Amino acid sequence: MNVFVIGIGLIGGSMVKDIKRLMPNVTIYGIDAKQEHIDEALSLGIIEEQANYSQLPIADVVIVSIPVDAMIKELPKILDAVNDDCVVFDAGSTKLQICKVLDEHPKRRNFLACHPISGTEFSGPSAAINGLYEGKTNIICEVEKTAFKLQERALELFQTLGMRIRYMNPEAHDKHIAYVSHLSHISSFMLGKTVIEKERNERDIFDMAGSGFESTVRLAKSSPAMWTPIFKQNKENVVETLEGYIKNLTEFKKMLLADDYDGIYNEMNNTNKIKEILNGIPQTKNKV
Amino acid sequence: MNVFVIGIGLIGGSMVKDIKRLMPNVTIYGIDAKQEHIDEALSLGIIEEQANYSQLPIADVVIVSIPVDAMIKELPKILDAVNDDCVVFDAGSTKLQICKVLDEHPKRRNFLACHPISGTEFSGPSAAINGLYEGKTNIICEVEKTAFKLQERALELFQTLGMRIRYMNPEAHDKHIAYVSHLSHISSFMLGKTVIEKERNERDIFDMAGSGFESTVRLAKSSPAMWTPIFKQNKENVVETLEGYIKNLTEFKKMLLADDYDGIYNEMNNTNKIKEILNGIPQTKNKV
Repeated sequence: MNVFVIGIGLIGGSMVKDIKRLMPNVTIYGIDAKQEHIDEALSLGIIEEQANYSQLPIADVVIVSIPVDAMIKELPKILDAVNDDCVVFDAGSTKLQICKVLDEHPKRRNFLACHPISGTEFSGPSAAINGLYEGKTNIICEVEKTAFKLQERALELFQTLGMRIRYMNPEAHDKHIAYVSHLSHISSFMLGKTVIEKERNERDIFDMAGSGFESTVRLAKSSPAMWTPIFKQNKENVVETLEGYIKNLTEFKKMLLADDYDGIYNEMNNTNKIKEILNGIPQTKNKV
Repeated sequence: MNVFVIGIGLIGGSMVKDIKRLMPNVTIYGIDAKQEHIDEALSLGIIEEQANYSQLPIADVVIVSIPVDAMIKELPKILDAVNDDCVVFDAGSTKLQICKVLDEHPKRRNFLACHPISGTEFSGPSAAINGLYEGKTNIICEVEKTAFKLQERALELFQTLGMRIRYMNPEAHDKHIAYVSHLSHISSFMLGKTVIEKERNERDIFDMAGSGFESTVRLAKSSPAMWTPIFKQNKENVVETLEGYIKNLTEFKKMLLADDYDGIYNEMNNTNKIKEILNGIPQTKNKV
């Protein structure tokens, strides 16, 4: 099986590492706009051969893991180039514009719109790791528009990687992901900014940053080149989440100014149920 | 050596676990307002004997790890009860009001104002773990007000636990900790609230929550009983951090509404230096 990965970073790189490790008789071809990524991926053994679009006709599977603005430009060309029995899937964090741009493409049936929800704050080929997708959720949109046989090939691959599948329409995907992913990134970036601004002249102060700050600000290490086009494509939903978030922060501040500590306690106590939600286990009463 | 821990949860419990493990000839006495905490701590082997304030005269070291509002009420009584050769230190996340309330106490020299910066989002005796303080920072305030011999005893203990010491005045502590700790907690609680509010009727949507959301919202699992009095005591500084944070989020939203994606890219790129700050290593250029 010939697997092409277009955009060899954390997402695509990790995926082909696992495919090579877990599936028999696979050859991994890599395409990337940056020659340094190709060289790094070759030397790390993430890909076996450098390739270009003219070789796409030999592909059985094409994984497209590039920023979502590039996705919109490249996916139609990629579909143009592949053969009729090839499945192309993306790994973009937005789905609506990607699905729209391909809706009328003559090879729409060769495309599967995916969002494997996994990652770290690191980027580039060196960030690729084994097992990134084990136990993680892969959102698939408009599955009915993909040829049945090609759905099957992709699903077998996702199963081998240990992913759980959820089907969703692109509108719902973009709306919900704005809350559970895009807002987290902005909240983290702006937290980092606020603290850096304040502490600019007192770098030693970061000695005081415990593990709490580190985990909350972790996503502020993410790649701006990847995230700017995500926010652009999902602007409307992201603005809505930001408005809700700013409103809640402002209300918290007002309670603090009004010395409403019962209100503050209740806010936190109600939000504690995030434990239950994240773990799927019953919440235990807080202990001091 | 007789070590008393008053308030046996994550902070005090973890500390006496390490003291017992790492120091010879120590007996651990536990005091807690909740009998269930005492019972749990005894059965977990965190403390050896249940005690009360009337036994404090036999203490060599007293660790006070209770919510900061209780701290203000209890620390004067604890100091009243201990002998002249006992060192009492606290582990409160605020320092100004605690130092103020003890400033004129006849046994001020027996008190060392501390903030060991470590923790997890869990609470209660069962949350106590070994090695919680290894490599972590302990902020000590107004060290000059503590008897030299008692400073020494406490520092030896902190060294045994692997902590780094930083000296700071209480005003600076409270100001800076508002940025690197208190704001993180509010940002996380309000993120959790915003997402829960939105997704109330669609619980399955949390399937979409990747590790990014989980780490950003982790602190929203923290104990409201511990955090409400912290926000109360550090109100002025916390309000200032919230204002800065809300301002930055609002500006980000405005850039998004104005389609200023270069601005958004630059915001994130500038904030990426948080990597460098947190790791103390030179930042590498982001790769897509």
